[in-house]
Amino acid sequence: MSYRHFIVGFTALGIVTAGGVGTALADTAPADTALADTTARAAVTRTDPGPFPVDHVLSNKSLVRAAAALVEAAKREGDQRVTMVIMERSGVIREVVRTRKAGPQTYESAKRKAYTAVAFGRPTSELTDNATVNQIPGTLTLPGGVPVIYRGFPIAGIGVGGAPDGRIDERIANAVLNAIYHSGKRKGARPSTRS
Amino acid sequence: MSYRHFIVGFTALGIVTAGGVGTALADTAPADTALADTTARAAVTRTDPGPFPVDHVLSNKSLVRAAAALVEAAKREGDQRVTMVIMERSGVIREVVRTRKAGPQTYESAKRKAYTAVAFGRPTSELTDNATVNQIPGTLTLPGGVPVIYRGFPIAGIGVGGAPDGRIDERIANAVLNAIYHSGKRKGARPSTRS
Amino acid sequence: MSYRHFIVGFTALGIVTAGGVGTALADTAPADTALADTTARAAVTRTDPGPFPVDHVLSNKSLVRAAAALVEAAKREGDQRVTMVIMERSGVIREVVRTRKAGPQTYESAKRKAYTAVAFGRPTSELTDNATVNQIPGTLTLPGGVPVIYRGFPIAGIGVGGAPDGRIDERIANAVLNAIYHSGKRKGARPSTRS
Amino acid sequence: MSYRHFIVGFTALGIVTAGGVGTALADTAPADTALADTTARAAVTRTDPGPFPVDHVLSNKSLVRAAAALVEAAKREGDQRVTMVIMERSGVIREVVRTRKAGPQTYESAKRKAYTAVAFGRPTSELTDNATVNQIPGTLTLPGGVPVIYRGFPIAGIGVGGAPDGRIDERIANAVLNAIYHSGKRKGARPSTRS
Amino acid sequence: MSYRHFIVGFTALGIVTAGGVGTALADTAPADTALADTTARAAVTRTDPGPFPVDHVLSNKSLVRAAAALVEAAKREGDQRVTMVIMERSGVIREVVRTRKAGPQTYESAKRKAYTAVAFGRPTSELTDNATVNQIPGTLTLPGGVPVIYRGFPIAGIGVGGAPDGRIDERIANAVLNAIYHSGKRKGARPSTRS
Amino acid sequence: MSYRHFIVGFTALGIVTAGGVGTALADTAPADTALADTTARAAVTRTDPGPFPVDHVLSNKSLVRAAAALVEAAKREGDQRVTMVIMERSGVIREVVRTRKAGPQTYESAKRKAYTAVAFGRPTSELTDNATVNQIPGTLTLPGGVPVIYRGFPIAGIGVGGAPDGRIDERIANAVLNAIYHSGKRKGARPSTRS
Amino acid sequence: MSYRHFIVGFTALGIVTAGGVGTALADTAPADTALADTTARAAVTRTDPGPFPVDHVLSNKSLVRAAAALVEAAKREGDQRVTMVIMERSGVIREVVRTRKAGPQTYESAKRKAYTAVAFGRPTSELTDNATVNQIPGTLTLPGGVPVIYRGFPIAGIGVGGAPDGRIDERIANAVLNAIYHSGKRKGARPSTRS
Amino acid sequence: MSYRHFIVGFTALGIVTAGGVGTALADTAPADTALADTTARAAVTRTDPGPFPVDHVLSNKSLVRAAAALVEAAKREGDQRVTMVIMERSGVIREVVRTRKAGPQTYESAKRKAYTAVAFGRPTSELTDNATVNQIPGTLTLPGGVPVIYRGFPIAGIGVGGAPDGRIDERIANAVLNAIYHSGKRKGARPSTRS
Repeated sequence: MSYRHFIVGFTALGIVTAGGVGTALADTAPADTALADTTARAAVTRTDPGPFPVDHVLSNKSLVRAAAALVEAAKREGDQRVTMVIMERSGVIREVVRTRKAGPQTYESAKRKAYTAVAFGRPTSELTDNATVNQIPGTLTLPGGVPVIYRGFPIAGIGVGGAPDGRIDERIANAVLNAIYHSGKRKGARPSTRS
Repeated sequence: MSYRHFIVGFTALGIVTAGGVGTALADTAPADTALADTTARAAVTRTDPGPFPVDHVLSNKSLVRAAAALVEAAKREGDQRVTMVIMERSGVIREVVRTRKAGPQTYESAKRKAYTAVAFGRPTSELTDNATVNQIPGTLTLPGGVPVIYRGFPIAGIGVGGAPDGRIDERIANAVLNAIYHSGKRKGARPSTRS
Repeated sequence: MSYRHFIVGFTALGIVTAGGVGTALADTAPADTALADTTARAAVTRTDPGPFPVDHVLSNKSLVRAAAALVEAAKREGDQRVTMVIMERSGVIREVVRTRKAGPQTYESAKRKAYTAVAFGRPTSELTDNATVNQIPGTLTLPGGVPVIYRGFPIAGIGVGGAPDGRIDERIANAVLNAIYHSGKRKGARPSTRS
Repeated sequence: MSYRHFIVGFTALGIVTAGGVGTALADTAPADTALADTTARAAVTRTDPGPFPVDHVLSNKSLVRAAAALVEAAKREGDQRVTMVIMERSGVIREVVRTRKAGPQTYESAKRKAYTAVAFGRPTSELTDNATVNQIPGTLTLPGGVPVIYRGFPIAGIGVGGAPDGRIDERIANAVLNAIYHSGKRKGARPSTRS
Repeated sequence: MSYRHFIVGFTALGIVTAGGVGTALADTAPADTALADTTARAAVTRTDPGPFPVDHVLSNKSLVRAAAALVEAAKREGDQRVTMVIMERSGVIREVVRTRKAGPQTYESAKRKAYTAVAFGRPTSELTDNATVNQIPGTLTLPGGVPVIYRGFPIAGIGVGGAPDGRIDERIANAVLNAIYHSGKRKGARPSTRS
Repeated sequence: MSYRHFIVGFTALGIVTAGGVGTALADTAPADTALADTTARAAVTRTDPGPFPVDHVLSNKSLVRAAAALVEAAKREGDQRVTMVIMERSGVIREVVRTRKAGPQTYESAKRKAYTAVAFGRPTSELTDNATVNQIPGTLTLPGGVPVIYRGFPIAGIGVGGAPDGRIDERIANAVLNAIYHSGKRKGARPSTRS
Repeated sequence: MSYRHFIVGFTALGIVTAGGVGTALADTAPADTALADTTARAAVTRTDPGPFPVDHVLSNKSLVRAAAALVEAAKREGDQRVTMVIMERSGVIREVVRTRKAGPQTYESAKRKAYTAVAFGRPTSELTDNATVNQIPGTLTLPGGVPVIYRGFPIAGIGVGGAPDGRIDERIANAVLNAIYHSGKRKGARPSTRS
Repeated sequence: MSYRHFIVGFTALGIVTAGGVGTALADTAPADTALADTTARAAVTRTDPGPFPVDHVLSNKSLVRAAAALVEAAKREGDQRVTMVIMERSGVIREVVRTRKAGPQTYESAKRKAYTAVAFGRPTSELTDNATVNQIPGTLTLPGGVPVIYRGFPIAGIGVGGAPDGRIDERIANAVLNAIYHSGKRKGARPSTRS
């Protein structure tokens, strides 16, 4: 009744696991996410948002960039036959891309990795030995799932499955994540701190 | 290839069906919804909201008021054995309340009414003869489903099923809708235009 | 063929696990449950109840109080994003409340905790290491599920999922349980032995 | 928007459909049901039943008699290959008996007939042309489903499917219903008014 | 690649596990099963049974006796709240009986025990530690499932779930098994070797 | 409440529809089926078959011939991209063959045709306008389903789907049926009455 | 037994429906499809392709272009909230893109349109009144589904759902189709015959 | 976080596991597979296959031979009651054959073995202790699944389940595999290197 009580949670994520996430996402999180969308922040901090508060979701444009990044990264990593699933916090699947010859198991694997990443706000590679997460139905704690963190909160998860080594899946997922973070920027104008 | 092509859609709802919705929701839509949350409106109208735009959802408090309104209205309407389902635009179910002795069909009926109302932005009682809607899987066009409209867009649907007359289901659903619209206000301070 | 044979059962609950339940529910079970509804008890003890005996279920009013208690407790415990499911002994789901931003896994987790609690008549936190229970499909033995005990029998289960520590889930579930036990009483008239 | 509004409901059943049910169940409803279990009636009529009111369900013994009646009636009606399903108001299936050589469709047919009968409180043979009922998912309005009415309320439904003529299914279902109504009595002591 | 290769199989059952089954079913297998139905045996032993060979299934009468035995045994064993499922070798469910107040998990547990028993031709209590069986989807190796063996072959499985100790479930299942084996005999004429 | 009562049933099939089946299967039913397996007939006609009566199923060899006939007939009929499903009376699927490039709908279509044919003992082409059959869940009354009749009883159904004209599906299904009827004979020794 | 027998089939598509498809796809089918991939054609026409013949599928690059075309067309058509599904002939879903605020029904609608288009080799707008197609499970014959035809055979289907008028859905689907047909060409080098 | 990263993948299969596959398939892979279909190879090696590249699938004829081999091998191995499933890389099931008296678990077991074999490009008997594979939903790593390898890539999987020893299942699966590899050859002309 001790270890199992604790689950990796996004609630405490801003404080407890900040370092971990910072490390995990070091090469993916853009430097300026903390500055974005101050308008929305106001809504979050007001005492009573009224009956219709807001949730952050993914733009359509980010999905286009994600598809391109997925195909490019899969090819770059050795022509991997993978499937990618992007799931929002609500559980809604916003995008699926199944590359050629991807195995029959890749959709379910990718979906579960995305689900696990957005549910617990951490890359699935950091949850491998988490007994609590493994016990929850629908999770999969093999590498290849990364959360889309916005203002310290997981608003979506990216899951990639099908590569022979989970670390390849995770590199591809991070390439997609990176493309999403830069979807609002002009093409070719990536911040220097990231190259 | 003529009538069937048209579906009732929320996209054109601001213009084409404004009157219909206005009529349908006349006794439920608070006078001041058009004024709320101008901060968020800015985000909607800007050219590029960035990778993480916002969606409006229901507050927790509104769910508490919805549950109370459902039970109260079901009793007032003659001790109806009904089930209520509230589904957001994403398809996520935010609340289910099944009153005592409600029949085994009431959950599915209520869910489908909520689904239909939020999908097409209209009360299900206005869609009864819509051949297109009836053909789409998962819909149910019996009365008892009403959309939660916010800024001309259906952000959720309320479905009620189980009463012997669909109009009773609809009255109960409207009572719940009314309670949600007033969730952000102080208790006991309902606007005079509504009483 | 020794340990595994034993499952925690409500049948023997009146004797074997009375102490355990007493401890577990110490701060939730009202002092007077043992005295309530002597009318119904008569039916239970008579030799042949006829073709249509009775089962105890939850009142509608108790569901309203449960929703309010869930939202209040989730906020008090640090704005937890949780989902609550209340399932009766028959397996019927009487209520679902999903708070804002609750993760995609919370419905299933909460449902399974409610299911486990009502099936075995114990808080899920006491079943964590029970190999038999863990083998039965549909169970989840993480903390956060508590049974609604009435006359020594589990008539319903409350499941809460989504907090980063299962003990928080359990505290919220107990707050809901407490609200249900007091649903039949006048508001503001909680017995002094419980405050 | 007129006819479709009305559904056959058990709420109005005490008044509107009393005759119909009386007719339908003339040879099955025992004369003394109105007298039974006055203890429970008290609970129903009191203003506030507290948090744990009661529902009426089927006794175990009635299931044994139902199985025997099903097999006997199926044989008597010409060795019909039928399946019987008994579903309670909660939706719980209490009993399934599939006779030898019953077709693969009989379970689903019988289940849907039981579901329809308990949901709407009428024999399915009376709902054949009810457009509203036919639109609700899970219903089947072919003859062969009969409700178990207790104190004017449908507490269960019996569905039988597989005979070449639905009226045979219905006769078999009524034989089962009759057996259930007499489950509380001594064997061989059927009331003279019924033979 | 050694232990896991072996699964308990009915094919080798006549030889390898004959003793085990004999022990397990000692108080349930009628002494004369080996003598029954010599007509059918002829068909089995002929070289080519033609396009339409035969399988043995359960009679309708045996289901009636099974229901009675289940209710009686459940009561005798301390008023256990159990569900029984009888599944034939084809996977068809011939009978379900859910006693009053049986928990929501009992149907699935009973079904899986019946499935496991008929699939592997052994009581589930003998398969508890069988890693292979435990890996196959749909199995449950808690006590309470017993096969109906006819001419050395499992033609059906009986599963019982819900008692606090699996050995109680198994005793009830064996009582049902016994009733089935005697379904073809005159009532009251049980062979002396079995009492 | 008249026409709908009647369903096409195998029970009355020996008498009422004998001609129809005779016509429908004229070029498929072997002349000597009526003579086959007199051993088994004895079991059918005895008063009490004991607890373990027999059902007729398909031999393994007949499945091999069915697969060959399906592929050959599909090619002969113009290289049709079809799927075949063979379902026994119990609902068990004994064989599936999906030819190259068969559409995604062909499995479900073929399965439902097989299901309908075995459930009602008639070719689906004879059930097209049967309102009762069309109302039963899981049926499909497009041509392409034919029953395997043995001693006047449908022991299996063959469903074929995917051809642009249902009559082609039906011809292919009949070719498979014919192959099954001859599975027990020596190759090349087809009865002259059939060529 | 006349009209219903005929289904729109791709088999006869090269001849019977060539005109229809030519018309329907006039602005989408590239002029040179008939010339492409003569290598593969050889395989198709040879008598025996051996055990491992080939099927044509979609390239990864075409999926990237499809995602971009979908988002662009949805915006151009009035910011439609639609979901797109691309399904191959095997039934495998290669891509899903759900635009922001798309309703909960859009995934299922889009999937069924894609399924119908690839199954029958025609735009769903041409199948609206086809009674046979409408009877087959899983189909949806509202406009918005278009097949990807390659060498006269439907190798995939594109389904779009969510616009208030099905013709808008179909225009968007055709824009995606067009993008796929040009995926193999250099960007900016569209053939003049198509603009 | 080391071992678990690695999954058995077909991508690296040409190099890393070539020996293993060679060994595993030694008595099943025909000597001339490496020479087959040089036409298709050209397509694979060209830089850009255009929008419609090709996948290799199974011929119809190979399915006929597979069915025959399955039944023959099952009989030869001691009249095993097994089910065989053949699944292509896309996940499509091309063939199912369920032999007489095969248990209710055999379909699911066979399907999962086929799925696992085609997903990971190895016999399931080589994956028994692979923690990664075991964690992926839908897999089953008991012996009996073998991949159909063509040009170093798994284009299908054959799964067999039901024998009491998994090695028997695997032998039967290999017999089927062998039959498929020889489907394109003249009957009776098996290469001498294989007998």
